[in-house]
Amino acid sequence: MKIGILNGGGDCAGLNAVTRAVVKRAESYGWEVIGIRYGWDGFLRNDTVKLSFPLVESLIGVGGTILKSSRTNPAKRPDGFQTILDNSKKLGLDAVVCVGGDDTLGVASQLYKKGLNAVGVPKTMDNDLSSTDYTFGFYSAVNEATHAIDNLRTTAESHDRVFVVEVMGREAGWVAAYAGIASGANLILVPEEPFDLNDVISFVRNRHERGEKATVIVISEGASLARKGSDLEGKVDEFGHVRLGGIGQLLGDEIEKATKFDTRISILGHMIRGGQPTAFDRVLSTQFGLAAVDLIKEGKFGMMTSLRGTKIVSVSLEESTSRQRLLDPEILETMRKLSY
Amino acid sequence: MKIGILNGGGDCAGLNAVTRAVVKRAESYGWEVIGIRYGWDGFLRNDTVKLSFPLVESLIGVGGTILKSSRTNPAKRPDGFQTILDNSKKLGLDAVVCVGGDDTLGVASQLYKKGLNAVGVPKTMDNDLSSTDYTFGFYSAVNEATHAIDNLRTTAESHDRVFVVEVMGREAGWVAAYAGIASGANLILVPEEPFDLNDVISFVRNRHERGEKATVIVISEGASLARKGSDLEGKVDEFGHVRLGGIGQLLGDEIEKATKFDTRISILGHMIRGGQPTAFDRVLSTQFGLAAVDLIKEGKFGMMTSLRGTKIVSVSLEESTSRQRLLDPEILETMRKLSY
Amino acid sequence: MKIGILNGGGDCAGLNAVTRAVVKRAESYGWEVIGIRYGWDGFLRNDTVKLSFPLVESLIGVGGTILKSSRTNPAKRPDGFQTILDNSKKLGLDAVVCVGGDDTLGVASQLYKKGLNAVGVPKTMDNDLSSTDYTFGFYSAVNEATHAIDNLRTTAESHDRVFVVEVMGREAGWVAAYAGIASGANLILVPEEPFDLNDVISFVRNRHERGEKATVIVISEGASLARKGSDLEGKVDEFGHVRLGGIGQLLGDEIEKATKFDTRISILGHMIRGGQPTAFDRVLSTQFGLAAVDLIKEGKFGMMTSLRGTKIVSVSLEESTSRQRLLDPEILETMRKLSY
Amino acid sequence: MKIGILNGGGDCAGLNAVTRAVVKRAESYGWEVIGIRYGWDGFLRNDTVKLSFPLVESLIGVGGTILKSSRTNPAKRPDGFQTILDNSKKLGLDAVVCVGGDDTLGVASQLYKKGLNAVGVPKTMDNDLSSTDYTFGFYSAVNEATHAIDNLRTTAESHDRVFVVEVMGREAGWVAAYAGIASGANLILVPEEPFDLNDVISFVRNRHERGEKATVIVISEGASLARKGSDLEGKVDEFGHVRLGGIGQLLGDEIEKATKFDTRISILGHMIRGGQPTAFDRVLSTQFGLAAVDLIKEGKFGMMTSLRGTKIVSVSLEESTSRQRLLDPEILETMRKLSY
Repeated sequence: MKIGILNGGGDCAGLNAVTRAVVKRAESYGWEVIGIRYGWDGFLRNDTVKLSFPLVESLIGVGGTILKSSRTNPAKRPDGFQTILDNSKKLGLDAVVCVGGDDTLGVASQLYKKGLNAVGVPKTMDNDLSSTDYTFGFYSAVNEATHAIDNLRTTAESHDRVFVVEVMGREAGWVAAYAGIASGANLILVPEEPFDLNDVISFVRNRHERGEKATVIVISEGASLARKGSDLEGKVDEFGHVRLGGIGQLLGDEIEKATKFDTRISILGHMIRGGQPTAFDRVLSTQFGLAAVDLIKEGKFGMMTSLRGTKIVSVSLEESTSRQRLLDPEILETMRKLSY
Repeated sequence: MKIGILNGGGDCAGLNAVTRAVVKRAESYGWEVIGIRYGWDGFLRNDTVKLSFPLVESLIGVGGTILKSSRTNPAKRPDGFQTILDNSKKLGLDAVVCVGGDDTLGVASQLYKKGLNAVGVPKTMDNDLSSTDYTFGFYSAVNEATHAIDNLRTTAESHDRVFVVEVMGREAGWVAAYAGIASGANLILVPEEPFDLNDVISFVRNRHERGEKATVIVISEGASLARKGSDLEGKVDEFGHVRLGGIGQLLGDEIEKATKFDTRISILGHMIRGGQPTAFDRVLSTQFGLAAVDLIKEGKFGMMTSLRGTKIVSVSLEESTSRQRLLDPEILETMRKLSY
Repeated sequence: MKIGILNGGGDCAGLNAVTRAVVKRAESYGWEVIGIRYGWDGFLRNDTVKLSFPLVESLIGVGGTILKSSRTNPAKRPDGFQTILDNSKKLGLDAVVCVGGDDTLGVASQLYKKGLNAVGVPKTMDNDLSSTDYTFGFYSAVNEATHAIDNLRTTAESHDRVFVVEVMGREAGWVAAYAGIASGANLILVPEEPFDLNDVISFVRNRHERGEKATVIVISEGASLARKGSDLEGKVDEFGHVRLGGIGQLLGDEIEKATKFDTRISILGHMIRGGQPTAFDRVLSTQFGLAAVDLIKEGKFGMMTSLRGTKIVSVSLEESTSRQRLLDPEILETMRKLSY
Repeated sequence: MKIGILNGGGDCAGLNAVTRAVVKRAESYGWEVIGIRYGWDGFLRNDTVKLSFPLVESLIGVGGTILKSSRTNPAKRPDGFQTILDNSKKLGLDAVVCVGGDDTLGVASQLYKKGLNAVGVPKTMDNDLSSTDYTFGFYSAVNEATHAIDNLRTTAESHDRVFVVEVMGREAGWVAAYAGIASGANLILVPEEPFDLNDVISFVRNRHERGEKATVIVISEGASLARKGSDLEGKVDEFGHVRLGGIGQLLGDEIEKATKFDTRISILGHMIRGGQPTAFDRVLSTQFGLAAVDLIKEGKFGMMTSLRGTKIVSVSLEESTSRQRLLDPEILETMRKLSY
């Protein structure tokens, strides 16, 4: 038996630990493992590397992906799917472990229907996949963001400043919510609940008046304004999204303009997605990697690994990619209880 | 309304975050919060401190417990229960949030039956409570242990050494299992599965023979030998438990004696239980703290908070303390798949 | 005896450790310590807090400053100096420990000449004081920046991207140089050596052509272009400084425009200055705090603490504030040797 | 030109960063670099590996040594020196960079006199080399130890316990002193100043009596008792050194026996020497690696790199190995000022 493994979409902490576990488990069955570089792009070009356990053993705690990744979608290439099916044969692959988010797993699902023996492993730093309770990369990113916000808070309090901290999250506010709760942020703004600029300004002002002069606001990059921004001089589009420069920058500027309080903006950006996986993510990615190989062993193609409670289960690739998972009402309620 | 909060048993990361959330939520209802110091011991002596949010706001990331803790069991004191019921009245407490492990929550359950309006929050660094999927403190400890073992591995590999790393866990091997998996340990030994000394020695020798000269073994302090230790000169009792000096020390000594490989022993001990909570533990302890106050609000005395999947639920204190949770077969199976 | 302590200028890691050591040492002499809040601003307003060791004991590893800080310069206030001299008498202060950078220490020097028993402790995250080899806060910031760049590099390599990372440093490139060297950055750009945009673009392109497709560039916020930016459409002023949006953003945009390589920009900003001090900074700030009190004990007013080699010495406040310390030729040479 | 590089003695953080810098600098001159594995042992056996920058580029932050190390001393092998001189010729080496402590550098010095073109780089986690102000590995170890003691302190304070923390340091107390100061330890015991057991017990008791019930004591493994241990039932030898089980264990046991206070012992051991180098150590080891190659370039054989103040200088290998560097009086004085 010979199996392939590829990573699609943005990198996150734990990808190498999945690869390591896949190689470990496959070798225990006497199988060969081929790393397909740059995701679907590399599959289209037959850009591969032979893997063995000594090559990947030390990578359990190493961020990023040695397989490299891309956002290439073969559906958008002429004969994309067919090329991959052909290349799979040329490479002699009996099955392929596809590690990625909705896009990557959606392609895996389509290729499965066309005959590729694909199994999936969910990956998203954003935690917005409906097919699994958590996936690796999320808690590592939350830990990094929490650390950064902890740091910023010491400066905010030393100087009685307002800090607006923007974190990744275009459609869902998971990172903002968890890092905001974990760092004791005073206010958390997420895409799921558009905010009113005047409410935020009042919130900051009220804190200041009662002596809480340092305020830390954590905001998702995808957060938007509840009302159209007629008073924001065209900076916001008809859906409440900032046109240019980021919602964190806009919010910080408006708070400072309205309150005259010393306000700083920090865009955490990519800094939180790279780097070493936490123990949680190392264990989960290892479990997913082992389980993916066992799906192949059992011939369960078209399936992907998933965490439900404390159990590793499998779900169909097709279902997995049907809808995005937004913050649930319980977390939104938790955020409200902590806003002060 | 006036409520109390106390911490019982060993400290772990996240205790202060629970206190912080309890105060925050209680104050939002206009309630007063009294910190009872040193767990049940302080309750017996009316050793209390008035809490308010400014006092605890900055503690979300601070390890240990500002309330301090003890292992005092009022059942073992003359009139212990009655003294606490009396003191609760003297203090004017309408309810008490009891944060602790099986012992603390067991006492809370008994006091509830005698009339105390107790609610519980589960706490264990060891993750061995059956009443909740996870509780705070565990993942922080696993992260610290993983970091330490990562460090030890670099030394093991630089010098082709065997390292035996002993971690906390008397009855259950959760910390060893998770930290061992997360750090890529070569072998993990836990109380749930007594081990054969000769098997371990063969394992190390086999690795060495095929060129894997560095070996990292993670072992729970409560691990025991499968066979009686007649060949160990009385170092082990009739149940396979080491008599003196720790199982890690015994194992390391025996490996070195048998193989002549350079072998070092590291006892992580308390080092992993203190310190800052991870983001995971900060969020969970905050959720538990908020939920505990809401249990009081809803009059659900005799109940405790619990994590099931991604949901915070409540379970009865009585049930919660009925049995210890050992490593489930899935994790034992994962450990086996990774032993090499 | 009664002494005061104040912090001026931006916060950095280690300020609380200085305060802790000052209180410890002063109490060993039986002296009282008054914390003056918000630097010179608080001195003008008599905003003070009585300090004692139990209040500060646990702060050795806590970032920011519990005394809070400001950039207020009493020289710019009517009767500013006289108000402080008067307030010092009102407060009954026999001496004042002034902790800050050039501005704060310059004011301390002037007040000393007017009769205030001032001693100084140098503080700068930027490491640009000529009066001391190093001061606390710098290495903590470099460690944080290095960690962030380590993280960004994993993403850069996973996606074959160019990352431009901007760090603090308006006049001097110490943070960029040290964090860049420590993180293995491919190119480091500092204020001391204006850069040619085309050279940087060629550098990135050459790396790409020889297969090094990920490139990490670390740049000080104060870096500037060597040639006037006629081809940059007015984005740069006559001194080569970017007009709007930051030099990191400009550089990243221009690299992407010229090379078409996927390029990301990360502005680390305040994130690196807050947070916990490293052991190096904790030891140094403790030594400085102890030494500052001993300067008072010995009547050495007008002096400040300083690190020379491995020794804590004292230098005059007046000299200390005479010139800024730029990167020395040795470090610039080191950076060149590592550019590849 | 072809040069070799080897690592001798115990591993520490920064060794790989030296190798990386040596390869980088040598390749800039067009030289070849051969890694000699396992220190002098590998040189005796011609166990080598060809190095190139892509192999080592990512190792700047990786602990341990990919070259592996040993404590083999060729002076103790028959024809040891001659074998190395012969092997150097066989390998075609024009020079060798020897990275290690007093033992390794002493051998390098002897081989230099016999004709080997050796240059040295000082390495010691213990900071006890007289030939350099600091070397890499020390501050990384101090940072790890400080982190561990910070954690232990939270537990000590949560339970009003005494903690005795033993750290590496047989002859000199650098790690204990710096980690103890940085973590705010209450008492620091080092080899340089033998201690009186009764004094320590009184110290702990006095703290307890005035309400300071948690006490953290940091002790070097090489610390010894000032008086002969007649009252310690033979546990201590005639020089005051513990016979069995470690000085930390002895001290903790005796404190608990005398005071009845709950006392715990933590032996940090190897845990602090492995792992990632701090930014300080990464910069210093990079500077040393570059400078070592430049010593070869300039034909300065028999010399080693050294840090003096903020400058990288060179000193003769012969002088470097003449005497051990104990804690200087200034640090001992600092420790005394902080004991409370």
